[in-house]
Amino acid sequence: MHTDWRNQIIESCREQKLDIAFTSANTDHESSDAAGDVLDPEEKGFWRDHKSAKVNAIRTKTLIEQSDVAIIRFGDKYKQWNAAFDAGYCAALGKPYITLHAEEIIHPLKEVDAAAMAWATTTDQVVEILKYVVSDR
Amino acid sequence: MHTDWRNQIIESCREQKLDIAFTSANTDHESSDAAGDVLDPEEKGFWRDHKSAKVNAIRTKTLIEQSDVAIIRFGDKYKQWNAAFDAGYCAALGKPYITLHAEEIIHPLKEVDAAAMAWATTTDQVVEILKYVVSDR
Amino acid sequence: MHTDWRNQIIESCREQKLDIAFTSANTDHESSDAAGDVLDPEEKGFWRDHKSAKVNAIRTKTLIEQSDVAIIRFGDKYKQWNAAFDAGYCAALGKPYITLHAEEIIHPLKEVDAAAMAWATTTDQVVEILKYVVSDR
Amino acid sequence: MHTDWRNQIIESCREQKLDIAFTSANTDHESSDAAGDVLDPEEKGFWRDHKSAKVNAIRTKTLIEQSDVAIIRFGDKYKQWNAAFDAGYCAALGKPYITLHAEEIIHPLKEVDAAAMAWATTTDQVVEILKYVVSDR
Amino acid sequence: MHTDWRNQIIESCREQKLDIAFTSANTDHESSDAAGDVLDPEEKGFWRDHKSAKVNAIRTKTLIEQSDVAIIRFGDKYKQWNAAFDAGYCAALGKPYITLHAEEIIHPLKEVDAAAMAWATTTDQVVEILKYVVSDR
Amino acid sequence: MHTDWRNQIIESCREQKLDIAFTSANTDHESSDAAGDVLDPEEKGFWRDHKSAKVNAIRTKTLIEQSDVAIIRFGDKYKQWNAAFDAGYCAALGKPYITLHAEEIIHPLKEVDAAAMAWATTTDQVVEILKYVVSDR
Amino acid sequence: MHTDWRNQIIESCREQKLDIAFTSANTDHESSDAAGDVLDPEEKGFWRDHKSAKVNAIRTKTLIEQSDVAIIRFGDKYKQWNAAFDAGYCAALGKPYITLHAEEIIHPLKEVDAAAMAWATTTDQVVEILKYVVSDR
Amino acid sequence: MHTDWRNQIIESCREQKLDIAFTSANTDHESSDAAGDVLDPEEKGFWRDHKSAKVNAIRTKTLIEQSDVAIIRFGDKYKQWNAAFDAGYCAALGKPYITLHAEEIIHPLKEVDAAAMAWATTTDQVVEILKYVVSDR
Repeated sequence: MHTDWRNQIIESCREQKLDIAFTSANTDHESSDAAGDVLDPEEKGFWRDHKSAKVNAIRTKTLIEQSDVAIIRFGDKYKQWNAAFDAGYCAALGKPYITLHAEEIIHPLKEVDAAAMAWATTTDQVVEILKYVVSDR
Repeated sequence: MHTDWRNQIIESCREQKLDIAFTSANTDHESSDAAGDVLDPEEKGFWRDHKSAKVNAIRTKTLIEQSDVAIIRFGDKYKQWNAAFDAGYCAALGKPYITLHAEEIIHPLKEVDAAAMAWATTTDQVVEILKYVVSDR
Repeated sequence: MHTDWRNQIIESCREQKLDIAFTSANTDHESSDAAGDVLDPEEKGFWRDHKSAKVNAIRTKTLIEQSDVAIIRFGDKYKQWNAAFDAGYCAALGKPYITLHAEEIIHPLKEVDAAAMAWATTTDQVVEILKYVVSDR
Repeated sequence: MHTDWRNQIIESCREQKLDIAFTSANTDHESSDAAGDVLDPEEKGFWRDHKSAKVNAIRTKTLIEQSDVAIIRFGDKYKQWNAAFDAGYCAALGKPYITLHAEEIIHPLKEVDAAAMAWATTTDQVVEILKYVVSDR
Repeated sequence: MHTDWRNQIIESCREQKLDIAFTSANTDHESSDAAGDVLDPEEKGFWRDHKSAKVNAIRTKTLIEQSDVAIIRFGDKYKQWNAAFDAGYCAALGKPYITLHAEEIIHPLKEVDAAAMAWATTTDQVVEILKYVVSDR
Repeated sequence: MHTDWRNQIIESCREQKLDIAFTSANTDHESSDAAGDVLDPEEKGFWRDHKSAKVNAIRTKTLIEQSDVAIIRFGDKYKQWNAAFDAGYCAALGKPYITLHAEEIIHPLKEVDAAAMAWATTTDQVVEILKYVVSDR
Repeated sequence: MHTDWRNQIIESCREQKLDIAFTSANTDHESSDAAGDVLDPEEKGFWRDHKSAKVNAIRTKTLIEQSDVAIIRFGDKYKQWNAAFDAGYCAALGKPYITLHAEEIIHPLKEVDAAAMAWATTTDQVVEILKYVVSDR
Repeated sequence: MHTDWRNQIIESCREQKLDIAFTSANTDHESSDAAGDVLDPEEKGFWRDHKSAKVNAIRTKTLIEQSDVAIIRFGDKYKQWNAAFDAGYCAALGKPYITLHAEEIIHPLKEVDAAAMAWATTTDQVVEILKYVVSDR
């Protein structure tokens, strides 16, 4: 269910024939955590995480820089510091982003939302925004 | 206790006569949350937060850009998405930062640590790093 | 008639088979003002405007950054602070722009014109400039 | 009265002993319009304006780039396209700015406000924000 | 003969089937000087030149920024301050450029050559350099 | 054997049908050293090297800036200061790079590895990283 | 007489107690041409010039980047490609500059003037502009 | 002897009362290699080096960015990949640097020298260059 919001947005855009190309970080946690395992194996958790995080960053960094707009989702179960990190990265680059999260976590996300171009609570809202943004009037 | 780590670092640097100027975001939660209240009062929590977050950002943004190194701390109780946001902001600007957090939260912080220049678990370690960095050999 | 100048320029370029792709902000005022309405409804005019303006900015910001030259028109009836804002945005980015306005408003537009690459009074002049710029000599 | 808001802010900050240095564009309209007259005299209004605007820009451009935060005021009588131009310039540079204007002109200023860090309606509010931002907590 | 060097380079690259796209400023002096004439006619030479130079800059600026390497030629008859200006523009952007000029004018061009990636005396040399640079080894 | 690692990576990616375009500096030492010989011949070794290095830089600089990720290999026989130079160039641009070298030279490469996104010891590891990074999950 | 214009401007600013710090490239031609002679002596004029030009550039480059406004003078006797080069360098950096030259050379300087903030014909005019720009109104 | 060249330059500049502030990376190898030891101890050499290199980079990165010119020395005994890395970092930032090395290693340093502003073989030459650059003519 964690990655479901992505599929919902992508599916909905496809159905409405919006000409949008989607990219994302690797959303499969297991393979993402193992991204650096092909390199020398590590015993310490810190360094295993470190290596995988950097390998993933090769992908993420480039995708963020090439995108026109990012969608960053926050749930209330996980810490998702990486999501907030990506938001800060976008903000410093001047790259527009939309946050997607429930009303309950408005307060802890206030800095992240303050630099966002929009805050949505449902994937439908995100799709509507994207549809509006790419429409040719 | 939440802001204690700052004072510990500052005190320790002062005792050791390190020539370092410290700045920080407003660390008083109450006044920080009320930073925008002098402007038109808001009924909705989202907009009250929004206004305060932006007023605080005038301060934070400038301080980050003017600093030589940032120290970003994470605890396990709070979400601290703003801290992760600041880390991403630093990363995109190429501004060095040190993370300060316990070993228990290595995994959710892997992306943030991957872009950091150092990870410390105690304020003493942070002070030692700062002392080393400013020393004149 | 407000958006007529755009169509005149586009039509004229098409007739002359100039290989130019045109993009623009949403020029339909009603839908532009409602761009954020899909998100949570707002009672205060300020926040409704705020949300719509940001959603529109996702589009405008990207289009300005991707364009080779911008055409910015000013009439004497409206304040069009957004047009002047876009001109300043272009100026800071070093993006060339052409202003299109009547002689009567030269004085209040002096700062905007000073940073422009050309000032035109008719759409025909704009087309001639574009034709010249893209011609392959 | 046009420049009164500046003096009010400066006076009030001085009374409260805030350590803030203020700079501004030349606010004397007559001398500002004549800034280029020392160079070759011009018959056409456009070129006289052009030359003065550029001479003024030597000053304004540098001051904007060196400032930590800009305060941009809009009244309802004048077009003040230069103010909106400066706001766009700040936005593209990532320079924080505060707008100061009455509620009546929220709508035409929506794009300018959307990129601002705060909107104030009185100079007292601006002073409070500045006081908060420079306070050392 | 003034534009002959361009054609020699282009022809030679074409014969050798090098996959290089060439662009240039408008090299027809008469139409280049008249580039701004479609706008309001000017009596003063300075402003006529000014307007045409800016219209030409819309083209030149974009082409320089999009190119991978620039070839900048200097003869001994003309002042060609625009060529030296373009070289400085390239240098500040970090855009590589090759100078093409006779040995007699080495001394006055020393600053321009110091920032260049190569100095050639014949168009054949330029073609050889280009051929080498685009070759797929 | 010096350029063998490149071919191994390219071959392996081709076999696995990874959609990756590879570019590199000229890897033929003899022609690389002679890159500037088409220009005026030089007697002094320093200037011959200087000219060739600059001609090669036209190619390298552009390729580095256009790439998404660089692979930089170090052996223990050669000084390869140019490889370390390219790594520093990537680091300053924020361009991700992977180092490829044996365990024996970890210590002298510590600064170069510290700014890298991954360190691999075999070409197979590099291919696995690339495969992971471009995979569409 | 070649450097006289500098002294006239500096003297006049000093007399009027303008708080302006002046810097310049080395204006003594002989020592400027010999700037690299302390390094290995060169037989070829090109390399002697090359070395001196680069040593001078260490100075010039930094001074241009640190200045708030540049004054660039052109005479009709010399080619002064270095002056035009510096103008292009300023233009690409967005650094304001004022040109100082006689009316006779308007045409060959049109590109340089088009990117300038002002064109002056006398040092008195330059001083007036500087005085205006630094005045505290 | 390894760090002697630094002292020679600094001493000589002091004797000649040149107003130059010198900074450098930590030149004491032992303490430099141990820079990260205050953090969690590491068993693997790679990670010990990694941590120390990053702590050192906090210092080096900032010093490079704040300096006006860098002096980068190469000997023939060591690999000094960090020196070449710093040169590449300077080159990408457009920061001028001078190389200091013997004639024997011209060839492997050709790329590093090609992007340098000067190549010196003795510390006296470096001092002469610095003296020239800061002199007030």
